[in-house]
Amino acid sequence: MRIVLDAMGGDVGISVNMAGAYIASKRLEKSDTIIFVGDKDKIYNLLKQKYEDFPIKYEIVGSENDISMDDSPTWALLNREDSSVSKGLDIIGKKEADAFFSPGNTGVVLAFTLKKVGRIKGVIRPALGFTFPIGKHPLILDLGATPDPKPENLYQFALIGKEYMKIMRNIKDPLVGLLSIGEEDSKGSVIYQKAFELIQNDKSINFYGNIEGGDFFTDKVDIIVTDGFTGNIILKFAEGMIHWVKDNLKNSLRPFPLALTGLILSSPGILGLPFFYFSIKKFLRKASYDEYGGAPLLGVNGVVLIGHGKSNPKAVASGILNAKYIASGKLVENLKEVFERSNSEED
Amino acid sequence: MRIVLDAMGGDVGISVNMAGAYIASKRLEKSDTIIFVGDKDKIYNLLKQKYEDFPIKYEIVGSENDISMDDSPTWALLNREDSSVSKGLDIIGKKEADAFFSPGNTGVVLAFTLKKVGRIKGVIRPALGFTFPIGKHPLILDLGATPDPKPENLYQFALIGKEYMKIMRNIKDPLVGLLSIGEEDSKGSVIYQKAFELIQNDKSINFYGNIEGGDFFTDKVDIIVTDGFTGNIILKFAEGMIHWVKDNLKNSLRPFPLALTGLILSSPGILGLPFFYFSIKKFLRKASYDEYGGAPLLGVNGVVLIGHGKSNPKAVASGILNAKYIASGKLVENLKEVFERSNSEED
Repeated sequence: MRIVLDAMGGDVGISVNMAGAYIASKRLEKSDTIIFVGDKDKIYNLLKQKYEDFPIKYEIVGSENDISMDDSPTWALLNREDSSVSKGLDIIGKKEADAFFSPGNTGVVLAFTLKKVGRIKGVIRPALGFTFPIGKHPLILDLGATPDPKPENLYQFALIGKEYMKIMRNIKDPLVGLLSIGEEDSKGSVIYQKAFELIQNDKSINFYGNIEGGDFFTDKVDIIVTDGFTGNIILKFAEGMIHWVKDNLKNSLRPFPLALTGLILSSPGILGLPFFYFSIKKFLRKASYDEYGGAPLLGVNGVVLIGHGKSNPKAVASGILNAKYIASGKLVENLKEVFERSNSEED
Repeated sequence: MRIVLDAMGGDVGISVNMAGAYIASKRLEKSDTIIFVGDKDKIYNLLKQKYEDFPIKYEIVGSENDISMDDSPTWALLNREDSSVSKGLDIIGKKEADAFFSPGNTGVVLAFTLKKVGRIKGVIRPALGFTFPIGKHPLILDLGATPDPKPENLYQFALIGKEYMKIMRNIKDPLVGLLSIGEEDSKGSVIYQKAFELIQNDKSINFYGNIEGGDFFTDKVDIIVTDGFTGNIILKFAEGMIHWVKDNLKNSLRPFPLALTGLILSSPGILGLPFFYFSIKKFLRKASYDEYGGAPLLGVNGVVLIGHGKSNPKAVASGILNAKYIASGKLVENLKEVFERSNSEED
């Protein structure tokens, strides 16, 4: 497999991304190749100085101007044709590599993907997927690629999500829920009521029906179908809430060490203390998004994975490995078959 | 003030509601009256047996069939004309009382309010408001009354929210944010982009601009404008997440008492332990929705407040007191002025 890494993406950029690639390289096959796209000299120097023992093949493709996390997609399309995102996705569009990962600007990666890689025939709009890191870890899609959905978009997201979960999680017939405002079939906005009918009428989909906002935590379904407006707001709400919980827990726990640590140190209770801190830490890690390796852009004609701009090296490594895993599972080929079939059924 | 209580609403029903009314009665004025609507005998008996010293005036209005938390609005409109919700809102519609509180089925209360009380002239659709119990406690609206918004609805929610916050929180010029998917003016769905323009063009509104899902936790604005679909999903997501955090914290803390309590009990550290538990409890209470006294139905021609079906007596009391507070502040009268003005400006 040939995997393209946008070496310039993210808040920190090249140093974190190269460190992540190095971690990933140790878990890739000898036959795999990483294609670094970015500042040629910097990449070369880092590989020479820090990662001389890089264990697999690599190639370096030079790019010019970088894209920041704040650049708008429209502006970037006009002014950043020479960026690492654009050049990396060129390689995917030309089928010269199997997968692409960028810990970068989601909107810009989406825009260049639509330009350079395109959609799978029959897919009206792509969806940004995300594995919700709680409970049975459902796939939620869309998270922002399609903020103005039509019922047909939501229906297609159910089809796309199903293929993704078959490959990524080996779930043969994943259960699909439509995120709405009440469990009854007739609940929701007009668009969601129509989407409900479309999904229900497709007997190839294992459809649970409507689910509600609380069902992110109830293990009811494997796939949560929503639109890019609602999905994006929920994801950001969840991130905000996790930060808030962390901050508040830290404040809540602060009096504890101050008042007790010294005293406990002289008591036999010290044995239990690390156990307690370990539990709290485990809980916070579970609620953290840092460890999850990227959001797949689904329905496009290639494997494109986008990581958080705040990705650390471990998250970058995880993104690279997931990109390879999706490509190995032949997601794009499977989706082509599904949409060819449904197109010919409509004829 | 005359305050109507739906004595039959909620998961538990009459016993919790009467207990709540008793708590509230001690903080109401001697000149206030509570109008209990529900099972006449049961209300009478409870007042005789448990609350003989009820300190203020009350009236009892009999109703027949109850409404459960699962009944659909359409069904209830056809089959529950004799319910406590319907009869209580009759009183408000006839202007024979100043405010109504029900810890009941939100959809049914909304349906009967539209039938019996109606909208304020000029208000296209009502909004269900809610005080988000974190940070600077912003008002969020709508939470489910208007799941299919037009841009004009969202604009009106900004106007309505402003009057509510002026009265309830004494904020002279509350800052309004439009919940969308990116801070730039041009971000969001087509409907939200148009709503952005409408709000921005009204110079009477102190408009922050777009905010994102994470801004529920950042103290940026006093009012968060959203639609009933998105708002409802977020509220339920937040409730689900809080339960999940509580459950996980309990599990995380479980090893702690087991391993340590006995040992610490024999050490001087015991002094700090209650302090620590108190902090954790304070954090959980802050994140709990139980203590907040109801969601106002805004834009209707009367004061209608809806509590959570799981309200405890304290929450019912808080709902009754808030209903009176909103009526005392003349919210409906103020909104009528605002919408008369904006209607005549359009002529």
